[in-house]
Amino acid sequence: MSLPLYINIAEKIIQKIQNNELNEGEKLPAERHLAEMFSVSRSTIRSSLKYLEDLGIIETFHGAGHFVKTQKIYISLNTFYSFDIETERQNFKIKNKVFDAHTYIPSKDVKDIMGISNFTLIHYFKRIRAIGNIPVMVQDHHINHEVYPHIDFNVLNEIPLYDYLQDKFNKSPSKGVETITTIIPPVEIQKLLKIKPDIPVIVIERLAYVEGVVAEYTISYLKPEKYSFILNLEDKKSV
Amino acid sequence: MSLPLYINIAEKIIQKIQNNELNEGEKLPAERHLAEMFSVSRSTIRSSLKYLEDLGIIETFHGAGHFVKTQKIYISLNTFYSFDIETERQNFKIKNKVFDAHTYIPSKDVKDIMGISNFTLIHYFKRIRAIGNIPVMVQDHHINHEVYPHIDFNVLNEIPLYDYLQDKFNKSPSKGVETITTIIPPVEIQKLLKIKPDIPVIVIERLAYVEGVVAEYTISYLKPEKYSFILNLEDKKSV
Repeated sequence: MSLPLYINIAEKIIQKIQNNELNEGEKLPAERHLAEMFSVSRSTIRSSLKYLEDLGIIETFHGAGHFVKTQKIYISLNTFYSFDIETERQNFKIKNKVFDAHTYIPSKDVKDIMGISNFTLIHYFKRIRAIGNIPVMVQDHHINHEVYPHIDFNVLNEIPLYDYLQDKFNKSPSKGVETITTIIPPVEIQKLLKIKPDIPVIVIERLAYVEGVVAEYTISYLKPEKYSFILNLEDKKSV
Repeated sequence: MSLPLYINIAEKIIQKIQNNELNEGEKLPAERHLAEMFSVSRSTIRSSLKYLEDLGIIETFHGAGHFVKTQKIYISLNTFYSFDIETERQNFKIKNKVFDAHTYIPSKDVKDIMGISNFTLIHYFKRIRAIGNIPVMVQDHHINHEVYPHIDFNVLNEIPLYDYLQDKFNKSPSKGVETITTIIPPVEIQKLLKIKPDIPVIVIERLAYVEGVVAEYTISYLKPEKYSFILNLEDKKSV
């Protein structure tokens, strides 16, 4: 028993997406080009495109054509979350690269934000996180040396930060405050995320606490089309 | 006793912002132009600019100059919130314009999202919300006719939606689910928000409930530079 031709063609298009011959957000060739490419009728191509649309793999904009849909990562905002864990739960394989790592006396700005004394050291590192070869997030991490005296930065290429802190120090943050906003990012972030100038990115600033002390201050720059946030709202007054 | 000259000049610049001679996000004239404009030295101008920066009215980008800072509206995500109430609490005066209002049998998409039967009517209206003359948000509201049988759309130019629903029907939503994401908006939204093409906007979809029934489905398109969200995170597992 063989599959209908249109499903066969659809699967070939899916393969092109998996092989990065077609990227997320990219426009598909016109129907007649696809028909020529696969030596089938335009009506078969139309069925394949409909099927891919039903599967949520492509989306169609009237008059503009068919585009490979960006697969969003959903982050639930109702609990303290880990980007790694939420991302991998959704079957995205994330790759981390730590760089610029050093331990130093932080700037006045960082000290004020973290509410730490003049003599507190900070472990700083930058991380770029990618799915496949596509960078999706850049993070500036500031970790309080008083809470976490030593950090092996290289390990963080492989292990989620909070898992590492929990394993090594037997304590990880469990309370925090976040601000979510959008900004036109600095040029460095544009380059690392491979985005055009003038495109806003999502910025999440997190202050995370261990036993009432700021243990972590992280600024995350997110590629905007890659993330969605979900939130359950309750009116606390009426509970 | 008169104020220092630099504060005097700073206040003249603030007046220009208040009179919309200088808009949010706009670049200020170069230091030497400002010096000529106010017939003062460049060193006085430098003090004025420093003072405006300390007040959070302008921001300086190294090499790029001084810009009028966008005053963000902060939305707390920890309780069921009203955009009007949060906005006005921060002393922004918001102006609403309701249009496209009608009661109808909704499309299959809206029916599926709201989980309502084939025969349920929906009150639909679009709202554009502005601060001063600057549009900051466009909303598509779908209100369940079974929960709220009659709505006087014009009143919603003046009164927050939930206040109106509470006053008139003695019930307003107090639970909901939100998805926060970013998209390149449809052309219509670009025009209403007066933004360039290819700029992502924040989209918040809210499903709000009254006694377990979806009473409201609203899609809000937010001008991204205007909003920040604040969130208190707790690890529910550890409580």
